[in-house]
Amino acid sequence: MVQDRVTRITTTPVAFHDLPLLNTVGVHEPFALRAIVEVETAAGLTGLGETYGDEAHLARLRGAADALIGTEVFALNDAAARVTRVLAADTTTGGHGMSGMVTGSSTADRVLSPFEVALLDIQGKTVGRPVSDLLGGRLRDRVAFSGYLFYKWAGHPGAPADEWGAALDPDGIVRQARTMIDRYGFGALKLKGGVFPPEEEIAAILALRAEFPDLPLRLDPNAAWTVETSVMVGKALAGVLEYLEDPTPGIEGMAEVARQVPMPLATNMCVVAFDDVPPAVRADAVGVVLSDHHFWGGLRRSQLLAGLCRTFGLGLSMHSNSHLGISLAAMTHLAAATPNLDYACDTHWPWKRADEDVIKPGAIGFVDGAVAVPDGPGLGVELDRDALGRLHEQYLSCGLRNRDDTGYMQTVDPSYRAVSPRW
Amino acid sequence: MVQDRVTRITTTPVAFHDLPLLNTVGVHEPFALRAIVEVETAAGLTGLGETYGDEAHLARLRGAADALIGTEVFALNDAAARVTRVLAADTTTGGHGMSGMVTGSSTADRVLSPFEVALLDIQGKTVGRPVSDLLGGRLRDRVAFSGYLFYKWAGHPGAPADEWGAALDPDGIVRQARTMIDRYGFGALKLKGGVFPPEEEIAAILALRAEFPDLPLRLDPNAAWTVETSVMVGKALAGVLEYLEDPTPGIEGMAEVARQVPMPLATNMCVVAFDDVPPAVRADAVGVVLSDHHFWGGLRRSQLLAGLCRTFGLGLSMHSNSHLGISLAAMTHLAAATPNLDYACDTHWPWKRADEDVIKPGAIGFVDGAVAVPDGPGLGVELDRDALGRLHEQYLSCGLRNRDDTGYMQTVDPSYRAVSPRW
Repeated sequence: MVQDRVTRITTTPVAFHDLPLLNTVGVHEPFALRAIVEVETAAGLTGLGETYGDEAHLARLRGAADALIGTEVFALNDAAARVTRVLAADTTTGGHGMSGMVTGSSTADRVLSPFEVALLDIQGKTVGRPVSDLLGGRLRDRVAFSGYLFYKWAGHPGAPADEWGAALDPDGIVRQARTMIDRYGFGALKLKGGVFPPEEEIAAILALRAEFPDLPLRLDPNAAWTVETSVMVGKALAGVLEYLEDPTPGIEGMAEVARQVPMPLATNMCVVAFDDVPPAVRADAVGVVLSDHHFWGGLRRSQLLAGLCRTFGLGLSMHSNSHLGISLAAMTHLAAATPNLDYACDTHWPWKRADEDVIKPGAIGFVDGAVAVPDGPGLGVELDRDALGRLHEQYLSCGLRNRDDTGYMQTVDPSYRAVSPRW
Repeated sequence: MVQDRVTRITTTPVAFHDLPLLNTVGVHEPFALRAIVEVETAAGLTGLGETYGDEAHLARLRGAADALIGTEVFALNDAAARVTRVLAADTTTGGHGMSGMVTGSSTADRVLSPFEVALLDIQGKTVGRPVSDLLGGRLRDRVAFSGYLFYKWAGHPGAPADEWGAALDPDGIVRQARTMIDRYGFGALKLKGGVFPPEEEIAAILALRAEFPDLPLRLDPNAAWTVETSVMVGKALAGVLEYLEDPTPGIEGMAEVARQVPMPLATNMCVVAFDDVPPAVRADAVGVVLSDHHFWGGLRRSQLLAGLCRTFGLGLSMHSNSHLGISLAAMTHLAAATPNLDYACDTHWPWKRADEDVIKPGAIGFVDGAVAVPDGPGLGVELDRDALGRLHEQYLSCGLRNRDDTGYMQTVDPSYRAVSPRW
């Protein structure tokens, strides 16, 4: 048996420009942070992974990287065990990478994820196969994504308006949706809510429905509402939303809402780790889980989540944060090889500058709202070392070290507080 | 991307000698039936699978084999979809391969299993890696099995005593256990019960405990008991059994027993398909699931079952039927790569003649109650075509076409009836 082992791991934090997208805990800062993981092997192969860039997470990644030196490239079980062992001594907090909105994800799974993806990238290169083949083979050649609409300011405070301009009311959201569909061809739309009083967000959804009568629509207020408000919105949008995402905090609250609204409830907030699945199932709290390989422990463990959903009759969709091309490739391979992916996946891709990424252009992109599964070995994307250097320099110079949507909002409105539920 | 596709599939029924092992539905016939699947590819590789040999199952295997021609060897998702599609039109019954004791398993998963194993065997040969590497890599180099004790007659009716002789009381069972441990070195023991009144089987377990004070013990009456009897036995064997397996039929009954006995209940009868998991979890019916890749849809889907068990805090063990070396290799690779395998696996291996198998000798065997994970590519075992021919001839000449423990018992005792619960 020919083996190949990990000899070096490099973790590089990067920053790329982001727009002032509003959510219920604040507003996106001028830069989004990510960490790029490069895993090198004795045979000279390199695998790529992408994950959050917050400081506490970076420190954990480096500890895990040390522990992973010597790992055999097919030994994913061993890799998981090594990461779990090294994190057993970790007493740091924070670094969830999601601005306080998702804090219950498994630290071990969150840290393992980019390394697992990189090892699968290496496995694919070893055997000359795309990662999707290592996940059981693609069931679709193109993966559909949804257009992710945000309320937003015209530009960052003190800066001129960006190319998207303001979206602060139903008209603005419809205009944004039209632009996004014209550019990307999305066949489903999701609105990030929890920003304005629920009546205004209901109006925005109804405006989208009037403008795009055939597109599936979703609304995600990130647990901004009480149970009562959630039920009110759910009833108001009966027959309009394909699902209502995280209207209210916690499994109990979600279960209470689920009993009273006609559409499925989806979540990437109250079911974010395997430990959350049993209580959510027992409470019948959710109808759809938004998977995310960045916090579910990588692609194989996301397949386990998919199997759990299928077994328990839960729908499956896919969550995204601001991300670069390595994550897009990984998400696409995973989605292509997941039989029970019931919905178009989320992506923040349109909010990223087209000229900012760490991979060489051309390997992956959107046509008609979908991404073609890369055919090349592994993830099918190649690191652009110059671009990585530029985004790392940008990380060093931008001054941001942790995602803090709330703090950034407070620079504009010192009285602002992140509260949940807000309405 | 270099692809390789299935060009030919051969399914060969075989028969090998079996001994008069007693269970609650009758007695093992003189031959056990299996089907050997050979999958050939355009690149000239061959993968092996092993499954049940009953007629209805054979017919389904052949239909599935036709549908699988042209499948890409890494396309496990596509293979599953093809098998599911071709079986949608299947209206035949029977062929569960387990003598009526397990009838609720998924037909699609049962039929898919040997092909999935064969495709993984081919994948391993393609990439020069053992199957365990394709399952995330081995976490142990040797997989522990338990000694599987049976009440048995001295020999088949009308035949002289076999080398094991009779075991019809506690002394006989202890003698059998001693012989089996001397030969194989097992570090755990399981007694197939449901044959004699429960007081006698309690006495047998207590006799084993007295003789082997340190060995984990299990008792499996195959749902021969009412809830009341199960509770009585469970209480009588408190602190003696590591688990009590399928004392009573059905999820409801098991849940009732589970509430009243001190040891975990295990099952390979009331949770035998993914559809059984939600009701069993909701009812808290079982503490341990015995996986079996032959009816859970192969090795990857057995890994999903393992993940389900881990997520819901259920223990995991492994079930066996009478089997040959291809199955032993597959079971060993799976067990080696399963993090949460909590118990020594079942095997009928000691009841098989050492000179009857379809694989070339030397690749796999028992030392100190455990099987070393084969290092060779794929399953690491090689078909012995002459031996396959001999066991196929034996199939043709033996006259058996379906496993029928009850019918065989009735040739000895015409008044015998398979009833559950019996006591």
